[in-house]
Amino acid sequence: MRATELALGVDPTLPEPLFLQVARGLMDAIRAGRLRPGDPLPGSRTLAASLGLHRNTVLSAWRELHAEGWLQTHPARGTFVAEDLPLRRHRRLRAAPPAGVAERAGYDLGPLAPPGPDEALPRGALALLAGHVDVGLVPREALSRALRRALRDHGAQALSYGDPQGTLALREALARWVSSRRGLSAGPEHVMITRGSQGGLDLVARTLLGPGDLVAVEHLGYRPAWEAFEAHGATVVPVAVDHHGLRTDLLPGLLRRGSLRAVYVTPHHQYPTTVTLSAPRRMELLAFARAHRVAVLEDDYDHEFHYGARPVLPLASADAHGVVVYVGTLSKLLAPGLRAGFVVAPEPLIARLARARRAVDRQGDQVLELALAELLEDGELERHARRARKVYHARRDAFVEALTGDLGGVLRVEAPAGGLALWAPVDPSVNVERWAERARALGVLVHTGRRFVFEGRAPDALRLGFAALPEARLREAVRRLARALSPACGA
Amino acid sequence: MRATELALGVDPTLPEPLFLQVARGLMDAIRAGRLRPGDPLPGSRTLAASLGLHRNTVLSAWRELHAEGWLQTHPARGTFVAEDLPLRRHRRLRAAPPAGVAERAGYDLGPLAPPGPDEALPRGALALLAGHVDVGLVPREALSRALRRALRDHGAQALSYGDPQGTLALREALARWVSSRRGLSAGPEHVMITRGSQGGLDLVARTLLGPGDLVAVEHLGYRPAWEAFEAHGATVVPVAVDHHGLRTDLLPGLLRRGSLRAVYVTPHHQYPTTVTLSAPRRMELLAFARAHRVAVLEDDYDHEFHYGARPVLPLASADAHGVVVYVGTLSKLLAPGLRAGFVVAPEPLIARLARARRAVDRQGDQVLELALAELLEDGELERHARRARKVYHARRDAFVEALTGDLGGVLRVEAPAGGLALWAPVDPSVNVERWAERARALGVLVHTGRRFVFEGRAPDALRLGFAALPEARLREAVRRLARALSPACGA
Repeated sequence: MRATELALGVDPTLPEPLFLQVARGLMDAIRAGRLRPGDPLPGSRTLAASLGLHRNTVLSAWRELHAEGWLQTHPARGTFVAEDLPLRRHRRLRAAPPAGVAERAGYDLGPLAPPGPDEALPRGALALLAGHVDVGLVPREALSRALRRALRDHGAQALSYGDPQGTLALREALARWVSSRRGLSAGPEHVMITRGSQGGLDLVARTLLGPGDLVAVEHLGYRPAWEAFEAHGATVVPVAVDHHGLRTDLLPGLLRRGSLRAVYVTPHHQYPTTVTLSAPRRMELLAFARAHRVAVLEDDYDHEFHYGARPVLPLASADAHGVVVYVGTLSKLLAPGLRAGFVVAPEPLIARLARARRAVDRQGDQVLELALAELLEDGELERHARRARKVYHARRDAFVEALTGDLGGVLRVEAPAGGLALWAPVDPSVNVERWAERARALGVLVHTGRRFVFEGRAPDALRLGFAALPEARLREAVRRLARALSPACGA
Repeated sequence: MRATELALGVDPTLPEPLFLQVARGLMDAIRAGRLRPGDPLPGSRTLAASLGLHRNTVLSAWRELHAEGWLQTHPARGTFVAEDLPLRRHRRLRAAPPAGVAERAGYDLGPLAPPGPDEALPRGALALLAGHVDVGLVPREALSRALRRALRDHGAQALSYGDPQGTLALREALARWVSSRRGLSAGPEHVMITRGSQGGLDLVARTLLGPGDLVAVEHLGYRPAWEAFEAHGATVVPVAVDHHGLRTDLLPGLLRRGSLRAVYVTPHHQYPTTVTLSAPRRMELLAFARAHRVAVLEDDYDHEFHYGARPVLPLASADAHGVVVYVGTLSKLLAPGLRAGFVVAPEPLIARLARARRAVDRQGDQVLELALAELLEDGELERHARRARKVYHARRDAFVEALTGDLGGVLRVEAPAGGLALWAPVDPSVNVERWAERARALGVLVHTGRRFVFEGRAPDALRLGFAALPEARLREAVRRLARALSPACGA
């Protein structure tokens, strides 16, 4: 270890003699494991110079440490940490973590929220989990090259402080994309780049919501969105969903309950039930929002994945009055590990989102943003979307067929018009939670109705993701699900 | 445009006849500019098939549109959008933005915060701004290669959902790094990866603070930290800073004012005055925090950049009682565009940070995290730190020399022991704001005392960053600063 790396923390303004500070610093370094038995020490002259001390100070410290058995000197070879340290025996008895960080916090902490159900995916498990895509389809080489080009050709810009709203190149590319593909004519000034759709929802919540505000949400619904709204002080009010989506007829009743600031919806494929919000309800929702100055947070998380013949345009494309805050993402389209979402909204909101962003994390990852802009502009992302849509479409069909064949008696299976998962009500005679536990024991992971409930009884249902696994694995997962049904099976 | 790309939004559950829906959808596409005059339409058979409609429905729609002048048919060539559209004249009269996004939001918005002073750096300006580093020193090739390897060798992991606490590889590498370099013996379980130090501060604030809580902050101090605390409902209480750093003697008095939850400090090089928190005050702060269960948020934003002989260890390295929440970053060391910070703290806090993170943006950028882990482990980052330290050290000296020579009469210049900027009190006879305005007119950007004030009068001082510019440019900037002093100069 070089002298300048020893980090002894000597301070001449302290009352403690300098040589004792040096000695104590060295003992700490040994105790912390930064210096090990037998390690050579820097020469006293070098160390003294690097600490700005007189050499005698260092020699005095050495003498102390020798006397206490911390150091050994080999003539001609120099000074070393003793092989048999005073703390050695003591040390062997210590519990595992050699860390200096305290075990407990010295201030009060709130309760620890329970872990998400999929925070530790067992290796090799067949995960039928909503939102999981097949990252094997990601054009990694193209992404690698785009990242390299972003660094090589735009490095000075990409590595510096930038616009908290996101790099202009990606905002332009996204504006063109949503204009041509989603009927949502926007310019780059209407686009804010975020860390995935979750980053968008949280930033919008931070900007629009506060204590005392109500947010109507679909129920069943998407818990991470509720958590973002609640984190900023708002009160979440669940509103029922039926076969046509959110029950918009229930919204006027909420106005009496307090200051309704926003309605959160997933109109394309409702999360988790996959139903599409019907056209009359879309109109009703927009009219309601306009009349009462309520923001509509439209989470269009899987726009690209629609297998039916009829593309459904986002609510935002029909919004002439600036009530819709449109939240989209490339993370589902490409890979959840690439956090790249965006918000499309009137400029006054975008400006406030960008200002708020400065205190959240200053700005996005400009290297990634430039790379994604390139992939969008050269059509790579569109080609990937087409490939992935085709693959997931086939998987959906194979999955539905297998489920109908093996589990048609207990599951009500309907092919969803789009998305990466299906919603399957379970026969009430089956204990869904126990079934899911047994399936987990057989290496199959599923989400049960409980996950999507805000309050009250969980529905007897499973949400089953089919996008991440090839057909043969999907069929194997279904076979195991069927085995897990039998009460004779383990768990 | 292909039939499937037309995105007409037809819905059979609507009362409106299907042929009218098709017609209206096409008119909307033309109005929105997705279809232009002269564009060919897909064949009626293809379009009908893609919409799941009978061909007659599409033909009825075409007839309607013909009648209204939206379409033209060329025998044998097909159907086209009319060259002379009904809306053409009207359109020419429209204001500039062809966007469908409304100009105003249809819900209430709070006031817009003023822009940050450096949000629009004029091109070619000599930016003497704190926090700006020389991104030209970044080992871009090594970073590019590391990103490529992360995608190639760990792509399946890096692109999937992962641990909101951060990838284990980077947490391990950082734990080793702070253990060996900062006297802060930590394991990966004590480390949380964040989006830069701002992301760490905001996440800690979100987890620890709420309405009614007080946070003591250094004054003068760092506004983006204040903004993060306030965004989560806390009240910021400024505490004076003198030549030994934070006036810890003033802390006990705050206990009477409410629930003091945290003290925010920059002990290494106080922001903005660059003073180092003295050893007795460090002890006092830790003892105070321990006694009153107050968290100490230590922002060690520029640890690597210390030019003196005596390395100063972080407060956290002396914290036996878990009161310090240590916030570090690689963004200053490498480049502000790479958002990579970390928090080191007792496990119970780290667990809560990780849970909170799920609702913020789910997880970090794992590709970048894996790449940075590699650069840390193979010593590339350490080599870069040495190179950068050397370069910035020389720039500091040249800058101080130039300032002393050209502006010694109005500026009190002292070489800071570390960091990327110096703090220079200005003679009270000079109007600092006017000077800065004139300097800006001459292409030199500086931060004035105003930027660091929470309340009350701004100090007559400049904070001048020297890291981003080579010596000759620094000298040029100083010459222009001197010119800007003369009242004869423009602006």
